Amino acid sequence: MYNPAGVTTSPDLPIPDQMKAWVLGDPEQLFLREKPTPIPGRAEVLVRIDAVAICATDLEIIHSGSPASILGGLPFKKNFTPGHEYMGTVAALGPDVDEFRIGERISVEIHAGCGQCKRCRQGMYTSCLNYGKPEKGHRANGFTTDGGFAEYAVNHINTLARVPDTMSDAEATLVVTAGTSMYGLTELGGLVVGESVVVIGPGPIGLLAVAVAKALGASPVILTGTRNRRLAIGQELGADRVININDEDPVQVVKHLTGGIGADYVVECAGTEATLNQAIHMTNRGGKICLAAFPHELAKLDIAHLVKNNIYAYGIRGEGRSATRRAMALMAEKRFNATKIHTHTFPLADLPTALRYARERIEDAIKVVVTTREAADVSRAAE
Amino acid sequence: MYNPAGVTTSPDLPIPDQMKAWVLGDPEQLFLREKPTPIPGRAEVLVRIDAVAICATDLEIIHSGSPASILGGLPFKKNFTPGHEYMGTVAALGPDVDEFRIGERISVEIHAGCGQCKRCRQGMYTSCLNYGKPEKGHRANGFTTDGGFAEYAVNHINTLARVPDTMSDAEATLVVTAGTSMYGLTELGGLVVGESVVVIGPGPIGLLAVAVAKALGASPVILTGTRNRRLAIGQELGADRVININDEDPVQVVKHLTGGIGADYVVECAGTEATLNQAIHMTNRGGKICLAAFPHELAKLDIAHLVKNNIYAYGIRGEGRSATRRAMALMAEKRFNATKIHTHTFPLADLPTALRYARERIEDAIKVVVTTREAADVSRAAE
Amino acid sequence: MYNPAGVTTSPDLPIPDQMKAWVLGDPEQLFLREKPTPIPGRAEVLVRIDAVAICATDLEIIHSGSPASILGGLPFKKNFTPGHEYMGTVAALGPDVDEFRIGERISVEIHAGCGQCKRCRQGMYTSCLNYGKPEKGHRANGFTTDGGFAEYAVNHINTLARVPDTMSDAEATLVVTAGTSMYGLTELGGLVVGESVVVIGPGPIGLLAVAVAKALGASPVILTGTRNRRLAIGQELGADRVININDEDPVQVVKHLTGGIGADYVVECAGTEATLNQAIHMTNRGGKICLAAFPHELAKLDIAHLVKNNIYAYGIRGEGRSATRRAMALMAEKRFNATKIHTHTFPLADLPTALRYARERIEDAIKVVVTTREAADVSRAAE
Amino acid sequence: MYNPAGVTTSPDLPIPDQMKAWVLGDPEQLFLREKPTPIPGRAEVLVRIDAVAICATDLEIIHSGSPASILGGLPFKKNFTPGHEYMGTVAALGPDVDEFRIGERISVEIHAGCGQCKRCRQGMYTSCLNYGKPEKGHRANGFTTDGGFAEYAVNHINTLARVPDTMSDAEATLVVTAGTSMYGLTELGGLVVGESVVVIGPGPIGLLAVAVAKALGASPVILTGTRNRRLAIGQELGADRVININDEDPVQVVKHLTGGIGADYVVECAGTEATLNQAIHMTNRGGKICLAAFPHELAKLDIAHLVKNNIYAYGIRGEGRSATRRAMALMAEKRFNATKIHTHTFPLADLPTALRYARERIEDAIKVVVTTREAADVSRAAE
Repeated sequence: MYNPAGVTTSPDLPIPDQMKAWVLGDPEQLFLREKPTPIPGRAEVLVRIDAVAICATDLEIIHSGSPASILGGLPFKKNFTPGHEYMGTVAALGPDVDEFRIGERISVEIHAGCGQCKRCRQGMYTSCLNYGKPEKGHRANGFTTDGGFAEYAVNHINTLARVPDTMSDAEATLVVTAGTSMYGLTELGGLVVGESVVVIGPGPIGLLAVAVAKALGASPVILTGTRNRRLAIGQELGADRVININDEDPVQVVKHLTGGIGADYVVECAGTEATLNQAIHMTNRGGKICLAAFPHELAKLDIAHLVKNNIYAYGIRGEGRSATRRAMALMAEKRFNATKIHTHTFPLADLPTALRYARERIEDAIKVVVTTREAADVSRAAE
Repeated sequence: MYNPAGVTTSPDLPIPDQMKAWVLGDPEQLFLREKPTPIPGRAEVLVRIDAVAICATDLEIIHSGSPASILGGLPFKKNFTPGHEYMGTVAALGPDVDEFRIGERISVEIHAGCGQCKRCRQGMYTSCLNYGKPEKGHRANGFTTDGGFAEYAVNHINTLARVPDTMSDAEATLVVTAGTSMYGLTELGGLVVGESVVVIGPGPIGLLAVAVAKALGASPVILTGTRNRRLAIGQELGADRVININDEDPVQVVKHLTGGIGADYVVECAGTEATLNQAIHMTNRGGKICLAAFPHELAKLDIAHLVKNNIYAYGIRGEGRSATRRAMALMAEKRFNATKIHTHTFPLADLPTALRYARERIEDAIKVVVTTREAADVSRAAE
Repeated sequence: MYNPAGVTTSPDLPIPDQMKAWVLGDPEQLFLREKPTPIPGRAEVLVRIDAVAICATDLEIIHSGSPASILGGLPFKKNFTPGHEYMGTVAALGPDVDEFRIGERISVEIHAGCGQCKRCRQGMYTSCLNYGKPEKGHRANGFTTDGGFAEYAVNHINTLARVPDTMSDAEATLVVTAGTSMYGLTELGGLVVGESVVVIGPGPIGLLAVAVAKALGASPVILTGTRNRRLAIGQELGADRVININDEDPVQVVKHLTGGIGADYVVECAGTEATLNQAIHMTNRGGKICLAAFPHELAKLDIAHLVKNNIYAYGIRGEGRSATRRAMALMAEKRFNATKIHTHTFPLADLPTALRYARERIEDAIKVVVTTREAADVSRAAE
Repeated sequence: MYNPAGVTTSPDLPIPDQMKAWVLGDPEQLFLREKPTPIPGRAEVLVRIDAVAICATDLEIIHSGSPASILGGLPFKKNFTPGHEYMGTVAALGPDVDEFRIGERISVEIHAGCGQCKRCRQGMYTSCLNYGKPEKGHRANGFTTDGGFAEYAVNHINTLARVPDTMSDAEATLVVTAGTSMYGLTELGGLVVGESVVVIGPGPIGLLAVAVAKALGASPVILTGTRNRRLAIGQELGADRVININDEDPVQVVKHLTGGIGADYVVECAGTEATLNQAIHMTNRGGKICLAAFPHELAKLDIAHLVKNNIYAYGIRGEGRSATRRAMALMAEKRFNATKIHTHTFPLADLPTALRYARERIEDAIKVVVTTREAADVSRAAE
């Protein structure tokens, strides 16, 4: 039985020494294997994973056989377990941990900074200068350290947010995405009540950016995209106006809706050259753009317009400054219904099917959740 | 004689009704004409112009016959007087002005916001949403309202900074440039003591950015460029290291000089695709780029690197947030010697020659100053 | 008929040359007189006042016969018209005003800064260094310039917020109070989602601070006071917990509710020595206190505790940084119901009675509103 | 010999198993004893202490026999080693530490936050909510964990700043004090170039606040106090004007020097009721006060003035936000000469004499430094 020195366990939650985990093989290969259940250190807990949502970056990591596709420069990682949008139950406590109790339900954020570098010392732990160096205390589960497509994972206590009883496992997995959206708005300034926000791209981050912006009092909240079905979900999440850029010129419409000056804030979640330039041209003088998508190619941009108009552009790579906890606070109070982007659920054993649904957007899949606890088969999420 | 209603004048500084002013004709045409001496309104003064420095944007305005080249969208402006980097003497006071006295020497900043729009209300008057609308109170002398290649100009009192007796007219004209550099560093964060700063491009703004960054305690301060003579001036102004990008890879050198992580702040003053990408790649994770140059073309950029590294990019169009006054405070205390970038002086009547020196960089001209007061002929500035 | 040069009027809204206005006499004296209808200047409008709420500072001004009681140092002002929490209809436009149309319903904020001083240039117009100098462009209607207990008033366009059709006149008068609460939270930081907020004192500002904090996602929101009826209204407005400080030790209860560390933010709206020290002792290390009440006496305070715990204390005198517009945005979306603090309505002619209700808290009066439009007699506001 | 598992040592710097350390007995008792040389953990180093400056809080801790006098609530600590303003040489490295090398000279800051609490996650590690809990990773050497009146101490790498070869041991001990002053100015805003700063109280923190403010470009810098000799040192460190409050009314003089409005920033380093009220009354509207002294008694304050003038008051308990490294950067570039406050030097064995000089201000002692390396006897520091 699992009983490492210094680690607190409970008879109520027995833990096996070996756990099931999906691991990377060659590119596009994923195997379900047994691995030793990991051991939490100081300020860490062991999480029993109850549900995991699939993110587009998971697909990239599996496609390339390595998180290097996202991070650049990291070596090929056979036997690595991806998956980073998970929630679960605290199963064991590392030495001196009393901030959480065994049995508590928690969701996670990805990044635990080293706590030592200049950026961590500024509170910017997602910009940790020791990224990818676990020996310095850095963790990014599912990217640089083992992630959530498994029965158990180790998490730093900084990465945990409590899940209220009233929230389902599946909804709790969406807190990571909502936290990324929240962080984007945080970095943009924080005073969004009554200010105009455009979200470009109705993917999961974009859709929840609409929901978070609306919950924070932004007005109007405008969503642009190409798929009407997605745009309709954006409206359900609070968009005051949606723009299908195949039908309308988004820059012109945004200017029209904002008294001719453009939007105060633009959250760019599409990452194409066209949408990046739209973002530049639809932001008002002195306004701010959050760059929340990873473009796959160099983009030819109208930087002169950005300079002449004193526009600020902020790149974000994830969910910093405790934004995940703030997102959880809003979701716990039912300020928006994130489950509207949750479309499918599969058991952990069917991860390959779940990944295929996410990759190929089968049945208009948006967020596909994998669960270890419920008898779930291929099914659309309940309305 | 000049004696408008509500305006205070002084017998010590008699003012003619008509003044000499250079005005735009067709593109590349500039004529010396007589114009009515302008009349200051509420919160404005009449400035007798004593010296004006030539800026690259002046050359563009004259080249195109219109400030539209800089601003976009504004109509062709025959009879317009360009020139925005000037200093002079308060010659008359608008109604109720008691903040300045007639006879005081002052330098100027360009932008007087409308004071009514959202950005002005936030203190971001260089991002005034009523830009180009003088009826709303906006002025940008030399861009949207008559500028300094003339005997007199009207300035809002917000745009004035007192010139100490110990500062020459020529040095005082450089405060606008230094203020722009100061604003760039202000927007980047303000806590630069002990942080690393790279300045790309040893033009006037870049060279004074080196000087200001050093005066504010940045360390190291690194300057990149292609002309060794300019780089040498950068060293005199405080650069700890200069990089001729024809000889060395600036990204590699900056990383080497910063413990492998890149610089905290980069001030991009060159505006080419190559240097913009260098800026992106030499900034450390969570670091900030000030975009201080107007690129003439679209630039193909590695936005993915910016996003993955949580880099912030700030466009600046000029000298906001009272940065000109802060620059003046540093220059008044001789914290740096801006006159190192002042190379030539001409009388106002020789403006075309002065412009030619600036445009063609004759005799390595950097800042060419035109003066109305001193018997000046074609001469290099004193060392 | 009213038809000043440069001012735009409309036949739909005829304006008399003389208007009725309440004016100060000796202390505690208030007379209903005729005054010339005022004339809007550049960037100003004439407002036909439709409703005015009574604020405690109005009572102080009338009591002392001068705004000096609030501001210090200003001379006794016979013939001055107080009243600052009003709303109305745009009746005439000053020269070049096109931001508003005649007939639009608007509410106001108090302060229009000079736009020239250092603080206005930073966006801090409520801290205008030309306070009380109308010749510099400063206005604080009801404090330094004529206010709203009259048929008409002049307002700078910066002070206006549009009232949606769905909002009653009475509710719109409460935007000033809500804006002050919003400004307090703005100055405290802006990232209140999921953070703990204590509001001390269930007066109008305190009660709406509860509502605004809750709308912005703060959690928990705790309200302290001595009157259970007021605390109950706080609960209706969103307080998660109320503390009657006659029954419970507020510092102990707040610590208990916040895991032993104290609250992130405290908004102090009572202004007594006891409550100021409670604020200091219930704020957590690194937390922030907004001082929103004017104490009438010196207060003996535990500054050492504040210093040892790196606590920040921010004084606010009103509704800065466009907070009134943000409050209006929340109220327009029905994020909270400010009318819960509106208890009584009187016609303008009965202002003395209205003031007595407010001063003596007759029938538990909280906000008493005076209206010029509706046939209103002494009546409790509708539920 | 000292050779703990996982710790890297060097034959060049042999370390004894037992070291000499001064320890607390009963109040006012201090004994020189042998203690085990402490062992650095992860992210920690062992520092060989070369010099320690004496701070007023050391005197309080020794007087009361416990750091409780400063912190409140901590138990009496016999055998505890005080002393927190030290510098030394890296003597051994904890596991995985490669940020520093053995033999490097370093100075320290006091606080190493837990890295887990809300405040540490915001970068506010001096406000750590786990203060006093070493099991959570918090250290405040000389306050909650053993300090510098000893041969060796353990320090988290976050607390270290490299000392350049050109800086003496004694000067390097002053970096902690300068860092506290720097932090005060950091919290006040950061844009102090050209802004007015008043420092109240010419103790060590006050005098170096003058030096740091001047180095950052503040103007004017005004120092108030009662001892002319101290004020004269303030002038040498850059004060533009000094005010002996026994001779002049400081509020009146500051208003006179600032155009009648008061100072932008006040750093209060005296902590008396009188000086706290002076700070409130000499700060301009919208200005900021840094509260840097621990008052020994409750203070009766004019909070109404603070509220009416939108003044911000920030308590600071020490040297946060990496301010010590920024102070070191300025000192390394010789921007000011901190050694002007260093008056006396004693060997470690004479600590009681050194403390007496500091406590009784014998021979006008300001900073008294104890050294372990140099043969030092009672002597005034070199000019």
